[in-house]
Amino acid sequence: MIEQGRTHVAVEDPGYPPARWAFARAGAKVTPVPVDGEGLIVERVPADIAVIMVTPSHQFPVGVVMSPRRRAELLDFANRHDAVIVEDDYDGEFRFSGLPVEALQTLDRTDRVFYVGTFSKSLLPALRLGYIIAPYWAHDPLIVTKQASDWFSPSVAQGAPAAFITEGHLARHVRAMRRIYGERRTAINEALARHCADIMRPIPSLAGLHMAAHLDRGVSSNLDQVLSAHGLAIEPLERYQIEDRGWTGLVLSFGTIGTAEIDPAIRLLANILGKRKTS
Amino acid sequence: MIEQGRTHVAVEDPGYPPARWAFARAGAKVTPVPVDGEGLIVERVPADIAVIMVTPSHQFPVGVVMSPRRRAELLDFANRHDAVIVEDDYDGEFRFSGLPVEALQTLDRTDRVFYVGTFSKSLLPALRLGYIIAPYWAHDPLIVTKQASDWFSPSVAQGAPAAFITEGHLARHVRAMRRIYGERRTAINEALARHCADIMRPIPSLAGLHMAAHLDRGVSSNLDQVLSAHGLAIEPLERYQIEDRGWTGLVLSFGTIGTAEIDPAIRLLANILGKRKTS
Repeated sequence: MIEQGRTHVAVEDPGYPPARWAFARAGAKVTPVPVDGEGLIVERVPADIAVIMVTPSHQFPVGVVMSPRRRAELLDFANRHDAVIVEDDYDGEFRFSGLPVEALQTLDRTDRVFYVGTFSKSLLPALRLGYIIAPYWAHDPLIVTKQASDWFSPSVAQGAPAAFITEGHLARHVRAMRRIYGERRTAINEALARHCADIMRPIPSLAGLHMAAHLDRGVSSNLDQVLSAHGLAIEPLERYQIEDRGWTGLVLSFGTIGTAEIDPAIRLLANILGKRKTS
Repeated sequence: MIEQGRTHVAVEDPGYPPARWAFARAGAKVTPVPVDGEGLIVERVPADIAVIMVTPSHQFPVGVVMSPRRRAELLDFANRHDAVIVEDDYDGEFRFSGLPVEALQTLDRTDRVFYVGTFSKSLLPALRLGYIIAPYWAHDPLIVTKQASDWFSPSVAQGAPAAFITEGHLARHVRAMRRIYGERRTAINEALARHCADIMRPIPSLAGLHMAAHLDRGVSSNLDQVLSAHGLAIEPLERYQIEDRGWTGLVLSFGTIGTAEIDPAIRLLANILGKRKTS
């Protein structure tokens, strides 16, 4: 489907680098489009775009939910310019509050949304399994492309998850983990309010295994190494920007940290950032 | 590494279609090069070639071994034209007779051979695991390409085979299966001599889970369906030709048939072919 140097693909900026790499390596022309508190800024998408890649449930890495208004605008834009939308919902299983916002794929009436899911967050990354809910017209090309790339995914890594799903274990696992991730998320928000209220503002989000927070300035490049030694997976938000979009801050991932480790780690973070502030 | 429409890749004709598809979908210009009893006819490879894809241990589908003379000629050609060689050794674990011929990768003194192996034949296709023994200069680009395509292969489908190999089970399994496949191969050759000597000539081969046989004319397109119902996986050799190279005959696969089923299946084959001959 990608024509070398001609197929024009829009990705979010800041955004998920591997998605950008995959399109670029396939020969697409890739244009980063900025994101605000409502998600992708649709009016900044070039008119000749063929593919628009978005993360509406939980923007990666900023964390915002694409607003209903922006969703309607995006679908209308895609329809007017005959573009397709790739809706990457990589961790929407873990929604902690608010009413569910309808997926682009659900709202779409013109068969142009590819809804992409994964078991990397809901189960484990080691499976390397995902899925696409694609418009009917795209089924045959997708099957041919999959066959030409690796024939099929390992049956041994599909059979066990298939049984896990049909026997209801995945739904139970997601429910149990949603509670645990929710506790960690609450603990992070409380610790940020306790230790970092003067220097960091959490960016609102409703779902997922990470959150982001604004900082008024960039952080030192080795901060993430210092903190990962204390159990907190943290990265500068700037790392995910292609152009300078003014998103400075931190991405805090709570997929693996224990709830009890959170407060000490955030206190350490506050100390490091506080020292830098006064120096 | 593939430049759209410019990188020129040579594949064997007849040959393995998915290899051709993978290069074509990546944007390469693909040229089929004919094969004779010694393997790829090197003098027919275009001078501007960048990649030469071959199956020297057991040409797919014809079954011949690339001769030592032809191997030297191919390496010399690649060196003079600064091409790389992909040596696909998909079932060379199962060699039944003859001295081993040294791999192109072993003979190569100029770091231009990529030796590609798989566990699909030696273990099971459901694993979707293979490996590349690549020149050192290509390691980083290969790693980047793998990461951009699917990050990594499923750990769950790698851990078990890794233990299976290190504990010596794979070597034992291959030895045991080599004996069983060897018995099937002997049974097919005996049955062909018994029932089909007047109409089919087996094409010499030393290894693998399939063999091919010449027929003086093409076979009906539904012959393989009839015979697969009797346990014999059989395909017209012509199906693997891109241009008419004069390879007419049958490809007989014995990866799954039981030894006792072989004689009745070949007798049925002889009956069908005999009827067609006299009609």
